[in-house]
Amino acid sequence: MNWDSLFAERTKQMKRSTVREILKLTAKPEVISFAGGLPAPELFPVDRIREATDVVLAERGREVLQYSTSEGMPELRGLIAKRLAHGNFQIHPDNILITSGSQQAIDMLARIFLNEGDRVVVENPTYVGMMSSWKSYYPRFSAVPTDNDGMLVDELPTLLAEPHKVMYAIPTFQNPQGTTLVQSRRAQLARILVEHGLPFIEDDPYGELRYSGDKVPSVLQMEAEVRGATNADGNVIYCGTFSKILTPGLRIGWVAAAFPVIDKLVQVKQGADLHTSTLNQVITYEVARDEAFLDAHIAHLREVYRQRRDLMLQTMDEYFPAEVTWTRPEGGLFLMVTLPAHLDATDLLKQALTHDVAFVPGEGFYIGDAGKNTFRLNFSNSREERIVEGIKRLGGVLKAAVRG
Amino acid sequence: MNWDSLFAERTKQMKRSTVREILKLTAKPEVISFAGGLPAPELFPVDRIREATDVVLAERGREVLQYSTSEGMPELRGLIAKRLAHGNFQIHPDNILITSGSQQAIDMLARIFLNEGDRVVVENPTYVGMMSSWKSYYPRFSAVPTDNDGMLVDELPTLLAEPHKVMYAIPTFQNPQGTTLVQSRRAQLARILVEHGLPFIEDDPYGELRYSGDKVPSVLQMEAEVRGATNADGNVIYCGTFSKILTPGLRIGWVAAAFPVIDKLVQVKQGADLHTSTLNQVITYEVARDEAFLDAHIAHLREVYRQRRDLMLQTMDEYFPAEVTWTRPEGGLFLMVTLPAHLDATDLLKQALTHDVAFVPGEGFYIGDAGKNTFRLNFSNSREERIVEGIKRLGGVLKAAVRG
Repeated sequence: MNWDSLFAERTKQMKRSTVREILKLTAKPEVISFAGGLPAPELFPVDRIREATDVVLAERGREVLQYSTSEGMPELRGLIAKRLAHGNFQIHPDNILITSGSQQAIDMLARIFLNEGDRVVVENPTYVGMMSSWKSYYPRFSAVPTDNDGMLVDELPTLLAEPHKVMYAIPTFQNPQGTTLVQSRRAQLARILVEHGLPFIEDDPYGELRYSGDKVPSVLQMEAEVRGATNADGNVIYCGTFSKILTPGLRIGWVAAAFPVIDKLVQVKQGADLHTSTLNQVITYEVARDEAFLDAHIAHLREVYRQRRDLMLQTMDEYFPAEVTWTRPEGGLFLMVTLPAHLDATDLLKQALTHDVAFVPGEGFYIGDAGKNTFRLNFSNSREERIVEGIKRLGGVLKAAVRG
Repeated sequence: MNWDSLFAERTKQMKRSTVREILKLTAKPEVISFAGGLPAPELFPVDRIREATDVVLAERGREVLQYSTSEGMPELRGLIAKRLAHGNFQIHPDNILITSGSQQAIDMLARIFLNEGDRVVVENPTYVGMMSSWKSYYPRFSAVPTDNDGMLVDELPTLLAEPHKVMYAIPTFQNPQGTTLVQSRRAQLARILVEHGLPFIEDDPYGELRYSGDKVPSVLQMEAEVRGATNADGNVIYCGTFSKILTPGLRIGWVAAAFPVIDKLVQVKQGADLHTSTLNQVITYEVARDEAFLDAHIAHLREVYRQRRDLMLQTMDEYFPAEVTWTRPEGGLFLMVTLPAHLDATDLLKQALTHDVAFVPGEGFYIGDAGKNTFRLNFSNSREERIVEGIKRLGGVLKAAVRG
């Protein structure tokens, strides 16, 4: 069979995720990898999950192992709605859909919105997993440049002179840069969204992982304020996940959005995978409904990740050459490094791997040709001594490259 | 927001699954529902699953709660490959991809194969969950009629005078009819597939649930024989699942196919949901790797489901009017009833619900206008006394309709 000739047009430009393929190269224990986006497994609340799982299987095993509804477990939807509420701002559980990780939400949103050729607004750089899903729907990406305060919202009105179908961004602790859209720009963005009637996908996997600076409200909430409303029936489609605050292996994410969007996503989800694992939803609910526990657990994650971030930045300050710059995130899992323009991070990765240290070249996160001289570092998934050792090695590689 | 105006073309004809919406109506405990496709929860090996889960969380909680590869857990892929092998026919674990239930496999296969307007061959009637996924890719369905021995393979060569991209069928204990493609037609089908170079998606969720008659080889295996090969590198893409032999709530399915197909599916899966729940794959592996247990468990399912099928058929023989006919499946979960041509099963369902008994009208399973006078009955998910009581009530409704 000549399979290639049979595959659909949309698959032609697909390739295996570069990030995931690099992760395979770095699976050897001697490699100090800053490449993945993995949370630290030593912080997973394994005992809590084990205990909750045992209880649900003992008390209602038949129910939690059976098929369930495409919308998701009502109690879990209620809990998420409650956690997203803030002051007067309230979300109804009917505005929540449970997904198989937030990657599925991102993919299904493309499916319900994108016709071939539709214009979509994204930050530049942006999340590579969104692009690898969305490209197969053939949108035209309009890229908004970013600086250390997030995307340049000022540039949106000019862009939006052309009609755009939808906008996607990670406003808080962005992947790959770790940067956050500051409050004044959020307010401006919310006004523009309402004014232009533009749906905005707020991808927020890292929002609860803040290590310094002041908390900023979600765009979801700020858009409601602009509308003078206290509900989630506006333009913002908010994607959340338990992957970074509990564990990713359960694959429990969610969408909070206006009901017509949820209703359409449910129709897509029925065809996509019927529903998200019943057992995993119930485990997540049983662990998360003890909100005192969950909040303490998140506080602990913040404490450990803060130390790792600080240690990485401090070691970079000491060992990286002056020609190299980087972001200084207030939260999340990543920071991004910029090399002198003539250096290529993919070449540098080959050098780094000979010293058993790895990162993800930034190129794949960019729309267009930019970013060849950038790379992403993850600081959440390495223990302190490996952060120091890995950054030292990387500093050596960088110095050789910069001065060579 | 006028959301409807923003949704993509492909979503226009989407609607919530009729079957799943009927299931909601029948959730009241007093309703005897033959509507769902649910396995019997009282037969789930809950204790085994509980024990296995506790062991994996105790021994390697961090690993089983972390992100994992898109292809799936190597040991589980190996186990599936081993169970699919038969005599000389062998499958390499690299030819297996783990999916979030076999619904996801069906959906991702449409994604890798279907351009708008591509012709696809399906049985008529066929699985409604396939249609609800595939319709959004705008294929042209060519329907092959069926009788009690499965699809009329004789009609394929004429159909295939027009080029077709792919063919989809459930050859064994079909949903909705419960019928099985007999061996002579399988051999003929396998020859046609090889001759025409036509990819064939063999959806086989029920194959292990045989209650009477002789086992027939999979089309996967017979196609290899036609090629004179002993591997899975041919035209057949086989979709399997643990939903019917263990539990559906874990959402563990798989695809066995030629490597280029698996490779392309992995690319799609990375964008669709990164990977299937690590924990659920490991639980499934831990339970299923005790093959003596698994085989004994399947034997027990067969025994109970056989009794339920026999009891349903026997009660139908006694209480259904002579004007009504039905299939007599050798396995699976369903049988299909045909009413006199002037009767409409959707009208009948309204009558039936007033007597607290439910089924799924057949219309949704058909390509074209056929099937309005048919409905599907599930016999796996009702205990014996409810089968008798439900069929008696339905017999009353049918007699009133037929004679009224």
